[in-house]
Amino acid sequence: MRFVTFEQDGHQGLAIEEQEGLRGLTVNDAGYPGDLAQLLKEGEATLQKAHRWLGGGRSLEGESIRFLPPLPRPAKIICVGLNYADHTKESPYDQPDYPTVFTRFASSLIGHNAPIIRPAGSEQLDYEGEMAVIIGTGGRNISRGRALDHVAGYSIFNDASVRDYQFKSPQWTMGKNFDATGAFGPAFVTAEELPLGGKGLQLRTLLNGEVVQQANTDDLIFDVADLISIISEVLTLEPGDVLVTGTPAGVGFARTPPLYMQEGDVCSVEVEGLGTLINPVSR
Amino acid sequence: MRFVTFEQDGHQGLAIEEQEGLRGLTVNDAGYPGDLAQLLKEGEATLQKAHRWLGGGRSLEGESIRFLPPLPRPAKIICVGLNYADHTKESPYDQPDYPTVFTRFASSLIGHNAPIIRPAGSEQLDYEGEMAVIIGTGGRNISRGRALDHVAGYSIFNDASVRDYQFKSPQWTMGKNFDATGAFGPAFVTAEELPLGGKGLQLRTLLNGEVVQQANTDDLIFDVADLISIISEVLTLEPGDVLVTGTPAGVGFARTPPLYMQEGDVCSVEVEGLGTLINPVSR
Repeated sequence: MRFVTFEQDGHQGLAIEEQEGLRGLTVNDAGYPGDLAQLLKEGEATLQKAHRWLGGGRSLEGESIRFLPPLPRPAKIICVGLNYADHTKESPYDQPDYPTVFTRFASSLIGHNAPIIRPAGSEQLDYEGEMAVIIGTGGRNISRGRALDHVAGYSIFNDASVRDYQFKSPQWTMGKNFDATGAFGPAFVTAEELPLGGKGLQLRTLLNGEVVQQANTDDLIFDVADLISIISEVLTLEPGDVLVTGTPAGVGFARTPPLYMQEGDVCSVEVEGLGTLINPVSR
Repeated sequence: MRFVTFEQDGHQGLAIEEQEGLRGLTVNDAGYPGDLAQLLKEGEATLQKAHRWLGGGRSLEGESIRFLPPLPRPAKIICVGLNYADHTKESPYDQPDYPTVFTRFASSLIGHNAPIIRPAGSEQLDYEGEMAVIIGTGGRNISRGRALDHVAGYSIFNDASVRDYQFKSPQWTMGKNFDATGAFGPAFVTAEELPLGGKGLQLRTLLNGEVVQQANTDDLIFDVADLISIISEVLTLEPGDVLVTGTPAGVGFARTPPLYMQEGDVCSVEVEGLGTLINPVSR
């Protein structure tokens, strides 16, 4: 199943993505089944029922809708840094033997096609293509063996980073939380559509059509099961929480000369089986 | 005005704190005015109206209620590290000239009197007494001169930190987000009850009755107005967001020998004009 959260005429809606396009309902339509956050809380049977129901919804033309992040206000956006060895090598850090976790607030999120905003005070807006994991069943102290049972599905994330702000202090939070820098979408794809644990998926980031990052999710140092198990030792995962799994080598700040995103650029992140997340860059 | 969020017989409630004690209503009482998050969104007039209304509520005996965090699920908990010079000196870091921001998820919060839980896998549970700021009016790019207009009020925070996890990777997130380690409360105190910007307040942390931290909020390197101005350059502040302003010297991990919290300990944080936040420690 593939779901898209969108806005049409000022109303939030939920659609399913099929070969023929999107079909869905908005909150003001009779029979709107609730947003993805609610459906994930209610569980898989509810999600399946909503999918069938939305199949009888309106056909949505691309121009009339605005994509929103699949989950516009996740309670947690847990991001993992230094999770591909080749990216750690290009960074100023040694490879830690424990996940490097930082966080985003929902206020930084944008959907597919929405502009990533380059802040006025920075020249160093960088791309980071990543696979995102959406939690279905919550829990604490989840074993590695059971971890993938807690995954509802996957999506794509562009963890656009304002490098000069990221490195103004020892913690990365500020450079990772500018408004309109966390691109997320276009779709939420349920786990059964993909290999177990989102393994073996090709990931590419393109800036203005040129490939700038290329990797396979098999190269994650801490894979999806590791992350769920290790993170849930610390905190209770809840339905709708988002894990952003990390970016591979090729980011702009590690290049000579550096390659930062400029107004008018277009950045795309493709993950096999998940689609393509496209965002223009503006000021 | 002083508000307390609580639970009674499984229902969340809101009370006002007066010299005679607490008076309030729960969600299942007729006339419940909404929780603090809703009231802050609606603005100061609504908050004042709710205060008068709750004055006609039930008198609440201490034993029948459980304190919750004033805001149990803030959209943002923005914590500032290295914000007292004497604490930076005892830490392994140099003083940055920009706020060191890390974050907590709401899943880590507990209220007054609730136990701080020492995780099974750690011997290094540390206290950090702090003043918290609650945003009333949201905004982006707020000038320093206008910043304090955006403050709804203040509270107390014990940013209990699991040091071994905090330093497993370059980012502190994991050690700062264990379930039941972010103590917050007991009350939300509106800004007009305190000096402008929460300046000049004595802060003390006591472990089993012994003073372990002592400072004055005048010693904050980035004061409340600085923080609001600098942080809102990056992100949109929203009503009910919480800023946790930083801890002074005296934390347990910087002592010789280190002083960590053990099962059976009681940790208190006092901030002048705000009250005392008391939490036992358990496993």
